[in-house]
Amino acid sequence: MGKISVAVLGATGMIGQRFIQLLEDHPYFELGGLYASERSDGKKLSDVLKVRDHRFQDETLEMRIETLTNKAVANGNRIAFSGIPSEMAKETEAELADLGVAVFSNAGSHRMRPDVPLLIPEVNPEHIMAVRDQSTFPNGGFIVTNANCSTTGIAPPLKALDESYGLQFVSVSTYQALSGAGYPGVPSLDAVGNVIPYIGGEEEKMETEILKMLGEYQNGKFIYSQFTMLANCARVPVIDGHLESMVVKMREAPELDDLIETLSGFKGHLQGLKLPTAPERPIIVRSENNRPQPALDAFAGEPSRARGMAVTVGRVRRNEDYYKLFALSHNTLRGGAGGSVINAELALAKKLL
Amino acid sequence: MGKISVAVLGATGMIGQRFIQLLEDHPYFELGGLYASERSDGKKLSDVLKVRDHRFQDETLEMRIETLTNKAVANGNRIAFSGIPSEMAKETEAELADLGVAVFSNAGSHRMRPDVPLLIPEVNPEHIMAVRDQSTFPNGGFIVTNANCSTTGIAPPLKALDESYGLQFVSVSTYQALSGAGYPGVPSLDAVGNVIPYIGGEEEKMETEILKMLGEYQNGKFIYSQFTMLANCARVPVIDGHLESMVVKMREAPELDDLIETLSGFKGHLQGLKLPTAPERPIIVRSENNRPQPALDAFAGEPSRARGMAVTVGRVRRNEDYYKLFALSHNTLRGGAGGSVINAELALAKKLL
Amino acid sequence: MGKISVAVLGATGMIGQRFIQLLEDHPYFELGGLYASERSDGKKLSDVLKVRDHRFQDETLEMRIETLTNKAVANGNRIAFSGIPSEMAKETEAELADLGVAVFSNAGSHRMRPDVPLLIPEVNPEHIMAVRDQSTFPNGGFIVTNANCSTTGIAPPLKALDESYGLQFVSVSTYQALSGAGYPGVPSLDAVGNVIPYIGGEEEKMETEILKMLGEYQNGKFIYSQFTMLANCARVPVIDGHLESMVVKMREAPELDDLIETLSGFKGHLQGLKLPTAPERPIIVRSENNRPQPALDAFAGEPSRARGMAVTVGRVRRNEDYYKLFALSHNTLRGGAGGSVINAELALAKKLL
Amino acid sequence: MGKISVAVLGATGMIGQRFIQLLEDHPYFELGGLYASERSDGKKLSDVLKVRDHRFQDETLEMRIETLTNKAVANGNRIAFSGIPSEMAKETEAELADLGVAVFSNAGSHRMRPDVPLLIPEVNPEHIMAVRDQSTFPNGGFIVTNANCSTTGIAPPLKALDESYGLQFVSVSTYQALSGAGYPGVPSLDAVGNVIPYIGGEEEKMETEILKMLGEYQNGKFIYSQFTMLANCARVPVIDGHLESMVVKMREAPELDDLIETLSGFKGHLQGLKLPTAPERPIIVRSENNRPQPALDAFAGEPSRARGMAVTVGRVRRNEDYYKLFALSHNTLRGGAGGSVINAELALAKKLL
Repeated sequence: MGKISVAVLGATGMIGQRFIQLLEDHPYFELGGLYASERSDGKKLSDVLKVRDHRFQDETLEMRIETLTNKAVANGNRIAFSGIPSEMAKETEAELADLGVAVFSNAGSHRMRPDVPLLIPEVNPEHIMAVRDQSTFPNGGFIVTNANCSTTGIAPPLKALDESYGLQFVSVSTYQALSGAGYPGVPSLDAVGNVIPYIGGEEEKMETEILKMLGEYQNGKFIYSQFTMLANCARVPVIDGHLESMVVKMREAPELDDLIETLSGFKGHLQGLKLPTAPERPIIVRSENNRPQPALDAFAGEPSRARGMAVTVGRVRRNEDYYKLFALSHNTLRGGAGGSVINAELALAKKLL
Repeated sequence: MGKISVAVLGATGMIGQRFIQLLEDHPYFELGGLYASERSDGKKLSDVLKVRDHRFQDETLEMRIETLTNKAVANGNRIAFSGIPSEMAKETEAELADLGVAVFSNAGSHRMRPDVPLLIPEVNPEHIMAVRDQSTFPNGGFIVTNANCSTTGIAPPLKALDESYGLQFVSVSTYQALSGAGYPGVPSLDAVGNVIPYIGGEEEKMETEILKMLGEYQNGKFIYSQFTMLANCARVPVIDGHLESMVVKMREAPELDDLIETLSGFKGHLQGLKLPTAPERPIIVRSENNRPQPALDAFAGEPSRARGMAVTVGRVRRNEDYYKLFALSHNTLRGGAGGSVINAELALAKKLL
Repeated sequence: MGKISVAVLGATGMIGQRFIQLLEDHPYFELGGLYASERSDGKKLSDVLKVRDHRFQDETLEMRIETLTNKAVANGNRIAFSGIPSEMAKETEAELADLGVAVFSNAGSHRMRPDVPLLIPEVNPEHIMAVRDQSTFPNGGFIVTNANCSTTGIAPPLKALDESYGLQFVSVSTYQALSGAGYPGVPSLDAVGNVIPYIGGEEEKMETEILKMLGEYQNGKFIYSQFTMLANCARVPVIDGHLESMVVKMREAPELDDLIETLSGFKGHLQGLKLPTAPERPIIVRSENNRPQPALDAFAGEPSRARGMAVTVGRVRRNEDYYKLFALSHNTLRGGAGGSVINAELALAKKLL
Repeated sequence: MGKISVAVLGATGMIGQRFIQLLEDHPYFELGGLYASERSDGKKLSDVLKVRDHRFQDETLEMRIETLTNKAVANGNRIAFSGIPSEMAKETEAELADLGVAVFSNAGSHRMRPDVPLLIPEVNPEHIMAVRDQSTFPNGGFIVTNANCSTTGIAPPLKALDESYGLQFVSVSTYQALSGAGYPGVPSLDAVGNVIPYIGGEEEKMETEILKMLGEYQNGKFIYSQFTMLANCARVPVIDGHLESMVVKMREAPELDDLIETLSGFKGHLQGLKLPTAPERPIIVRSENNRPQPALDAFAGEPSRARGMAVTVGRVRRNEDYYKLFALSHNTLRGGAGGSVINAELALAKKLL
């Protein structure tokens, strides 16, 4: 069987270029087109390169950007991986789905819709079946969304804890990387040697999205999970990798060793599906006393196709009924492009494509 | 009356050099000597300069460092401002107090002693009377300590909230500056573009020191405050200024406006004493949505002698019974040298010197 | 005599806010108005604060920004200190001069005009007399410009060397701070942990402006200096302070000690004029082997009003006929707002105001 | 034929860990042992991880560090790749060579010896024959050294220019990464938001090593090249990747296009040898106006085994008889571990192993 042709929307941005990286030599998908605004039309990827420490192949760097129009995208691509801004995504993604395209999106615009799954294959794979109910899109198109990047990084450990002990209270403070703001994003005069304790809309997203993801999909409806979720979000001068401090209280109060074993033993709910971009261990628990760190752990995940797809957890401590830990994830891989690619792999495995 | 001669211990370090800055032209104190290890003996301050953005006067830069011996310090100095490492401070500071010197210390070694005050004049000035009970030091010497820098930054707002509404639960995540680790401190290969979610002993200090400071001193004993205090500490690539995210639950659940007014109206408990290094407003509440920031708020505090001595609070939000906010303080001024200088000013005002 | 009322143009920017800082409590000038684009109209300085480590007085932070119109500025202000972008400055500054305002500008648009001085009081004070010849502006208005910030930092040492030994060849590589690009300026994703070897138009400016400044003004004409001047410009992740490596060859080849003495003994050509913002020593030569550094030397200059106005030189070495050194200057003080303020002070001393 | 067993000396350091990275799955070599000081004996690589953005395989991370003794290294390893500090390397490397080990070293201690080649295969491969004359080491052992990292980055372009046009004058200013100082290296309080215009011994190395490398090896002697070489070295807050500004004057003054073609067409002098770690194009010339940058170009080089082994050149400009350009190279790959690995590959191809 031939590979499925896919379009990358927003190919000049931080998420878009991570899509391109993950789709080089992908076993199921092949790059059918790189799309961005008219301003970049005809430029080579090498001319608009944003992602650091890239290892793009020379021939990928020679690929040309095309102007994003729905018609161009829908013509020949079964899938659109979307890294475009939310304000633009709302309309564009819906139109593409109307045209029969399966859209896997990083944008926030459709996440909380009652007919759109907010999906992490290891956490809530059954939510993907909501796309069958997306009657809005009659031509075989649909929309699947990722969670916001800081929510994604804590979702696997929270899922593991919730199903074992029952979450009651979660308080998270984030140390978020600059790439999460896109390009040009945060001015360097604000970022260098500084921390900005504000990311527009982020706390609200974190406090709602996690409840949808840890909830259930039954009879065509999402039933939200119920626990207290508090978020304080801040931007730090790190390029890639969101670190998050977590305080958790649960209905049960396990021994610390039990809790650590629950986290490190979490396999996700892929029930034997081998998704190429899925890490063997979705949660890696480190015992060193100064980990996880963005510099050392952002690219966690094996095999090599899953680099940057594992969440690293460390410094797990207990203080009476409260448990404290730090979690780290690569915000534009696990929390961005990689999340959408793995969602598409799940859709394929579930024969929705 | 002449000025009181004071010694600075640890004059080659980050705290020591902030002492020197605060003591240039001080109305009550004058620099009697700069002390450090033998390695720096005879060097000029300009040769061992560490503090950035300094505005030292040329003649201060010409001052010479002397080798720290207790005899040299005690000979002629009524006060020692100590910025030496804890492991060394334990013995040195006790010996100096024995020799009749009033020691105002940043080190952790004596903080939790039952006869030593852990003092912030605006928060618990009555604790200073514990020095009268320091029978250990018969010659008029005594030890007064600052809290650890990250505890100091949250103490004024927590005091304000505690006395108005009764603290029950506090969870803090820190974004701590590099200067807090002293010099050479954190290697740049660990710090640049990274966050390190670990500062040895810091969380334990935060979880105990605040309870001593918000407690009472009665009948010669410290009675600790009682509430749940949780800390997650991390180091960020910022030079000066500790940012801290806070989640607070109290016995009462005030309107958000009331709570903000309680914070911004907090005057401290100086009962009319005019301490030169005390800021007019110990807590400054900002309404902009992206403050406080280390880059913009580290030097908050008026009048000019109190620059860096105010705590800036911002992003005060409510989520049902929980309140969220960010606090920022200059860790080597408010949380370091400035804390000791103001403690000495209080001691003087209380006629303990 | 009352103080002269002055307007600050571009009060929301990096240069504009340094103007405000230097004009707080200035002995000759007082702030008559803060002007910026309509977008900021009515905002307080505290709402648009950009400059780090500021020590603005509370009442200054309460000042309101007004919309910049030439009429508003000219109405009541004898002087306009201009920190607006070059593309806008060309017309605005000329119109203000037409309206009788003395414009002291940081913008590049008028620098190379044959009737406009490119002025550093310590280097070429006699050039200021060109304003008498600015027949273009009949109502007592005129334009005086600063050099570009990286040129300013090397002008004093080059002047000292030129008049003593005769410059033949100068090659400079810059390590330029982010504040030089204004706000928002360089995206943090480009700046953090990176160097960008390109600053648009900067090398061309450096290679021409220095020749005008080190040249002469005779009979109403600027006669350019003649030597080979080569510049390589790069942006580094530093907030304030341009560092520049220099390689110099001269007609004479002095002993290294002589050359150092020539630099440190340079007094500038102020002929006894006491300008409030002029540093006592325009060039400070440091002998430590790792100076000058932006972090430690950006604020060099005494007395306190002249902080950030001295150029610090270090690592002076000789390699046969070539001399190597590093120079550092504060790019938005010495190389920006401070340069214009001191130019205005000279104009006043020369009775041109 | 089986793979050659190799030892990595200094496996806990920045260079040592790049060796390990390059030797994972190497076609000719296999890791025989990781050696470091006794302090790390028995630790796993994952416990002492320093290199950022690593992609180590899980099993490599489990490898154990052993205490470095010459006997242990020589027992079973034909090759030692050395990333130990120079002061220790002098004796250790000579002893290992005595014991019959082929030492490929990054240390400076043996570079300028009259019987030791300072080797870059693309630049001066014939120098390797000097090892035959190393009569000092009778048992088949020898020492081959890399140049210092900042010299290595400019050697290929200077070689290309020298052989085409004849170098007369070269002036270089460096923007050197923190990893070049090793670990712990530069304190973060000195590095963040700062530039340090001093790297001990670096300028002297640059001004001599390049002359040896661009010289000839004839009749058992190195004949040094003759041109003026001037270096100004500075450390910038970048993790990996040395940027260098260059000013060059040559006996001929080619058209700019010719010079660019000379650089981009440079193939090196490998005469058909296919060394696995050699990049197809040793010099990549970029035409974008803001390249090369450490963030985007440090990993230049194809095929994938040669990532980080190409030198990227950009902003090639002419100013009369002078040519200006920027060069960038990965200081711990091309300028460190990669340089030694490729030297060993050359030795193998030349049947010296």
